[in-house]
Amino acid sequence: MGNVGCGTVKVLTENQDRILQLTGSRVVVKRIAVAHLTKKRPEWVDRSMLTDDPAQVLDDPEIDIVAETIGGLQPAKEFMLHAIRNGKSVVTANKELLAKEGHELLISAARKPVDFLFEGAVAGGIPIIRPLKIDLAGNRINSIIGIVNGTTNYILTKMAREGSDFAETLAEAQKLGYAEVDPTDDVEGYDAAYKLAILSAIAFQSRVPISGVFHEGIRRIGKVDIEYAKGLGYTIKLLAIAKLHGDAMELRVHPAMVHDRHPLASVNDVYNAVFLHGDAVGDVMFYGRGAGMMPTGSAVAGDIIDICRNINHQSLGRISCTCFEDHRLIPIGEVVSKYYVRMQVIDRPKVLSNTARVFGEHNVSIASVVQRETTQGDAEIVWVTHPAREMDVRAALEEMTRLEVVHSISNLIRVED
Amino acid sequence: MGNVGCGTVKVLTENQDRILQLTGSRVVVKRIAVAHLTKKRPEWVDRSMLTDDPAQVLDDPEIDIVAETIGGLQPAKEFMLHAIRNGKSVVTANKELLAKEGHELLISAARKPVDFLFEGAVAGGIPIIRPLKIDLAGNRINSIIGIVNGTTNYILTKMAREGSDFAETLAEAQKLGYAEVDPTDDVEGYDAAYKLAILSAIAFQSRVPISGVFHEGIRRIGKVDIEYAKGLGYTIKLLAIAKLHGDAMELRVHPAMVHDRHPLASVNDVYNAVFLHGDAVGDVMFYGRGAGMMPTGSAVAGDIIDICRNINHQSLGRISCTCFEDHRLIPIGEVVSKYYVRMQVIDRPKVLSNTARVFGEHNVSIASVVQRETTQGDAEIVWVTHPAREMDVRAALEEMTRLEVVHSISNLIRVED
Repeated sequence: MGNVGCGTVKVLTENQDRILQLTGSRVVVKRIAVAHLTKKRPEWVDRSMLTDDPAQVLDDPEIDIVAETIGGLQPAKEFMLHAIRNGKSVVTANKELLAKEGHELLISAARKPVDFLFEGAVAGGIPIIRPLKIDLAGNRINSIIGIVNGTTNYILTKMAREGSDFAETLAEAQKLGYAEVDPTDDVEGYDAAYKLAILSAIAFQSRVPISGVFHEGIRRIGKVDIEYAKGLGYTIKLLAIAKLHGDAMELRVHPAMVHDRHPLASVNDVYNAVFLHGDAVGDVMFYGRGAGMMPTGSAVAGDIIDICRNINHQSLGRISCTCFEDHRLIPIGEVVSKYYVRMQVIDRPKVLSNTARVFGEHNVSIASVVQRETTQGDAEIVWVTHPAREMDVRAALEEMTRLEVVHSISNLIRVED
Repeated sequence: MGNVGCGTVKVLTENQDRILQLTGSRVVVKRIAVAHLTKKRPEWVDRSMLTDDPAQVLDDPEIDIVAETIGGLQPAKEFMLHAIRNGKSVVTANKELLAKEGHELLISAARKPVDFLFEGAVAGGIPIIRPLKIDLAGNRINSIIGIVNGTTNYILTKMAREGSDFAETLAEAQKLGYAEVDPTDDVEGYDAAYKLAILSAIAFQSRVPISGVFHEGIRRIGKVDIEYAKGLGYTIKLLAIAKLHGDAMELRVHPAMVHDRHPLASVNDVYNAVFLHGDAVGDVMFYGRGAGMMPTGSAVAGDIIDICRNINHQSLGRISCTCFEDHRLIPIGEVVSKYYVRMQVIDRPKVLSNTARVFGEHNVSIASVVQRETTQGDAEIVWVTHPAREMDVRAALEEMTRLEVVHSISNLIRVED
C-alpha cells in the first residue's frame, strides 16, 4: 500500500461501475496485506480490508487476482510465486524483480491457467508492453529509444532550463519529492536499465540478462555540457537504447545528446516516452507519465481489466511469455555511436592537430570541433565524432591523456541522431 | 488489394514464422478477392491466390479470418456482414463505414462467436483502439486531441516551413501522391471526422452519430495566418477534438492554433498523433505514421494476431462493442474556445475601440490585439480572444460585418491551448 497500491485501489473503486459494464465483472478489492496496520492511509482505503497477514490474501480461494505493489525482490517474489501456485493471476509493476528474475515468474505462471501481467513496470501509465505484444506483434522491432526515468528527466530538464548544475538540481528534486533520499537507482541508471531489459525482452522476443545491459548515470553531466549541446542543436537526455542487429542485441542506458528535431528532445520534466522502429510500422512513439500513484494505478487497473475478460472467457494465460529467443549481447566496446568529447588542453600551437591525429590513428573520424580559451594559457576542445566504435574512441582518449599537452578528458557523451 | 491489402499480405508473409511462435498459429493467406484479376500486383502477391469471386473467400469454411481492405460503404459492408454470418472474424481499417454504420457491424458480430477488430481505422499503424479498450480502460477519458489526417498535416507543415500558400502546396502534394486527385475527404476534414467519431465512441464508451461531428477543412488557412500564428507562438494544425463534459460530448474537426510547447505542435509531415487525458493516467500521447501500406498493414496484422490467440483459447468475441452510453452532443455554437480573428478595416480613429466594443457586448473578452496598416487607408486587425462561446463570437463578427468601417472578416481560427 505504497503509492502504486493506493492508486490502484482508487482507480478500481472509482471506476467500478464502468469496469462492470466493460467486462461484465464487478472488481472488488477484498483484502490488502500491509506491513504496518496502524500506518496512516488515504481516505479512500477502507481500513477494514487491511491485514498484516499476507496469507489472508494469498490463500483466500475467493481472491482471483493479486496485485503486487511492494517492490524489491523479496518478499514480493515469494508472494507472487505463492499466489500463482494457488491459481491466482498476478499483476505487478516491479521492474527490478522482473528484470532480474522475471523469467522464473513467467515460467511459473505459464504452468498454470493464470495471467501474469506487468504493464505498469515500464513507463508507468503509458501503454507499451501490451501494444508490443499485440498491436505491433506483426513487426520485427529493430530499435527502441526510451526516456524511461522521470527523476533524471526532471533533473536534466531543469538543468537545461535554468542553467543550474547537477548537485543543486538533485537537492531541489529531493526536496520536492521527485528524487529519493538515496537517488542511486534513478541517477545511476539502474531503474532505466531494468525497464530497458523488460522492454527489449518483449520487443525482441528474447531473454535479456540484466547484467548485459550497460548503464551509466547522469552525475557527470555538467552545465557546460548542456550549453555546448544547445549550441550544437542537441538536448541531453538519459536514454535507454536497444537495437537489434541480426540476432545480436545492443542494450545501453546513458546520457546522450538527442537532436532537437527528434520527438524525444521535447519530452520534458517527469514525462517518459518510448520511441521505437518496426519494419512495417516505421517510427512510433508512446508518451506520458512514467510514474506516480495514479498513472501506475491506471496501468495496474488495465491489467486487472484484461484478466477479468480472460476469467469470463476462460482464456487465462492467453498471452504468456513471448521470449523464445536467446539473442547474443553486444559488449559496449563494440557499439558504434557518435561521441561528444570535451577536454582541457594547454593552449599551444599544434595541440589541436596532435590530438586530432590520435583520433585518426584509432579510426575515429571527426565531424566538428570547437576550441576556446578558458584561463590564461589553457583551452577547452569540444569534439563531435562521426560514428565510431566505442573501444576505438576510448583507446584514443586513453592515449591522449598521456600527451603532456592534455590536462584531462572532462566528459564523453554519446550522440544519438 | 489496394495499399492496405498489399501491406497486410507482406507483413503476414514475411513474419509468418514469428507469428507462429507468438501465437501457436501459422497464419496463411489463402485467397484474395479482387475486382480485376489482371491488374499489376507487387511481387510478394502470389497470383494463384487471386479470385474475382468474393464468395471464394466469404464462403470458404477453411477461412477463419477475413480482412476487408476495399474501403467505402458497399460492397465492403455486405461482404463483412456475410463473413460474420458465416462465423468468420473480420478485420477492417474502413473508417468511413465504421463511422457511418459501424454499430450495425458490431451488433452483428456480437451475436456470433467472432472478433470484429479495426485498429487500423484510426491513425494507421499507431496502436490506439486497443490501448483505449484495455490499457486505459480503468480511466475516465475526458479529452482527446488528435492529428489524424496525414495529408492535411503534410500540407500545413509544408506551408509553415516554406511560407507557401494552400493551393500550390496542395498541387504539389497531389503530384507527390500525398494527396488524392479529389482531395475533398482529407482537405475538408471528412476523413478526420470519421476517425474522431470512432475514437470518441471507444474512449467515451458512447455511440457517436457522425452527423454530430462538426468539421471544417483547411482551405481557408492563408500563409498570413501561419505567419501571425508563428508570431504568437502557435502552430496551425488540423485537430480532431473530443471532450466529455459530464454526459455531453463536444466533437469537432477544424484547423486550430496549438501552442508551440504542446507536444502536438511538433508532429509534422505525414505523421499522426493522438493526445488524450484520462483521470488516472493524465496526459498520454501516441505518435506515428497514420497511413500508408506498411503501417496500416502492421495494424491489420496485429488484429489478426489477436484473433489467432482468441481462436486458440476459444475466446472469440472476448472484447466486443463497448459503446453502452448514448451521450448527448454539444452543438458547435455552444462550444467554448479561444479564437483568433483576422479582419480588414478602414484605418480611421476609433475603429479598434468600436470593434472591441462589439466583442464586449457579446461577452467576448479579448486577450490580445494587433493592428497593422496594409494598404493606404486600410488596416488589418488580429484579435485573440479569451475563452468564449462560439455563438457569441459568431454573433459579434456578424454584427461587425455590418459596420461601415469593417471591410471583411478574413479568418476565424480556434486556439487550443
